[in-house]
Amino acid sequence: MNNEIRVFCPATIANVSCGFDVLGLALDAVGDEMLVRKTKEKGIKITKLTGQDLPTETLENVAGVAGLAFLAASDYQGGFEIEIYKKIKAGSGIGSSAASSTGAVWAMNELTGRPFSALQLVKFAMEGERLASGVAHADNVAPALFGGFTLVRSYSPLDIVKINTPSELFATVIHPQIEVKTSDSRRILKTTISLEDGIKQWGNVGGLIAGLFTEDYDLIGRSLEDHIVEPIRSILIPGFDAVKQKAIETGALGCGISGSGPSIFALSKGEAMARKVAQAMTDVYEKIGIDYDVHVSKINTEGIKKL
Amino acid sequence: MNNEIRVFCPATIANVSCGFDVLGLALDAVGDEMLVRKTKEKGIKITKLTGQDLPTETLENVAGVAGLAFLAASDYQGGFEIEIYKKIKAGSGIGSSAASSTGAVWAMNELTGRPFSALQLVKFAMEGERLASGVAHADNVAPALFGGFTLVRSYSPLDIVKINTPSELFATVIHPQIEVKTSDSRRILKTTISLEDGIKQWGNVGGLIAGLFTEDYDLIGRSLEDHIVEPIRSILIPGFDAVKQKAIETGALGCGISGSGPSIFALSKGEAMARKVAQAMTDVYEKIGIDYDVHVSKINTEGIKKL
Repeated sequence: MNNEIRVFCPATIANVSCGFDVLGLALDAVGDEMLVRKTKEKGIKITKLTGQDLPTETLENVAGVAGLAFLAASDYQGGFEIEIYKKIKAGSGIGSSAASSTGAVWAMNELTGRPFSALQLVKFAMEGERLASGVAHADNVAPALFGGFTLVRSYSPLDIVKINTPSELFATVIHPQIEVKTSDSRRILKTTISLEDGIKQWGNVGGLIAGLFTEDYDLIGRSLEDHIVEPIRSILIPGFDAVKQKAIETGALGCGISGSGPSIFALSKGEAMARKVAQAMTDVYEKIGIDYDVHVSKINTEGIKKL
Repeated sequence: MNNEIRVFCPATIANVSCGFDVLGLALDAVGDEMLVRKTKEKGIKITKLTGQDLPTETLENVAGVAGLAFLAASDYQGGFEIEIYKKIKAGSGIGSSAASSTGAVWAMNELTGRPFSALQLVKFAMEGERLASGVAHADNVAPALFGGFTLVRSYSPLDIVKINTPSELFATVIHPQIEVKTSDSRRILKTTISLEDGIKQWGNVGGLIAGLFTEDYDLIGRSLEDHIVEPIRSILIPGFDAVKQKAIETGALGCGISGSGPSIFALSKGEAMARKVAQAMTDVYEKIGIDYDVHVSKINTEGIKKL
């Protein structure tokens, strides 16, 4: 067994319009790198962190906390050192914390003979999410670990379902450089919804899952509606309505908020369309004068991988 | 083209636990028969109605009203006579009105050279549902027309998705002989739900659709949960909790209220299990002393058919 492992930890899009708190997908073209090394000394140490200004104290770092959850459940008697090379911006809404949490526990599992299932690794990684946002959500960690589209059918007991990913599906993600904290973004949500909006939402979740299994791109597009969260959260994202309108006009199947934002994602059939959509989205922020990052990515169907 | 047609109109289970107002499935072993005949005279006449005490005035009969919607949209210059042989009890919660509405318009479409798509026929049949319950819902008429499991992804615009039906899936339906009106049963529902319950519900809808496409019977079973409607409506159905508990203990994948009740359905893997579950359910009503009908049926994947 190797003493160390270098891994790619994909960025992820949670919610995917209709699936608040339950749906997610993994990206291929953007993600962090981590190096995890076994140590004789017990415990977890973050020995290096580049690319973002984030805490390296074990208990203040999501990879540290997720790693401690792994260690607490494991028979392994040693510890780990972690080097984190962040490429995903913290707070961008494409699963920065989930990439670090899941990368750490996936690597630890590889280094100790794979004692845990992917589902168990999700549980450890969720402790990192709890640190990052106050809520142990699984909609980013699940796709990072399983790859492709995932559904968190239930949190109690935790039940994660891997969903078929049509091969021509591409994501465009634009990150306007403004700060929206996940915790703030959750706080503005209402705790009740109308039954009428609920019915629309579960109709769309059903439609999206059916569209993914039957590779019906039009159905996928029609199902990418969010009547619950987007009307509230989009207010926090300057230019959201214009970006969405341009993306759809250009030919995207659908467009919505990535996770708790501020990133905006679109799904398209084919890479060429996803690139056109990227251009249309960037045009909006060029005009408004807000800095942005933009990514075009195939859906990553394998999740975290060894480099 | 024939001058008359005799059709089988299947009973249907709407909601299917998690999918309030959007999911439905068609049964094979129970349904009405109808005979529809072209007439030179314009308009719709219900010339015979056996098996149930229901109005035969065109405007008071769901088949009559659905038929008028068909005629209003059709180029056909004549009219129709309808004979209805009811085998589904009105008010039982297994789509009695939907069977009559859809049977009428499906037969009329056959007799006039199929001018309308199944989706258009759903819209005509929904007018019958509006008469029956005050709400033009589509969760019974869609499976009656399309067969198998159907999802009403959206009502506006109407978007119906046919879902894969695993071949070993069987339904058990027990109808306790008590009256629950669809309109009453809708009135007691709350108009708002908690976001938390909503998340559980669309997680389960996603899980059920995924389970149906992947033919994962355990996942289908785990997804047959209803946190929104069952806790309220089940109060109207004597013995519901006991019936559900016995069905699950016996080995059903899941159990819930059929449509707006009072019928209770269970889904099982294989006919033998569905029959065992029927026995367990009837035992409960035997003990309580409530009369019942019970049906065991394969899922009907073709919908309405010519006899």
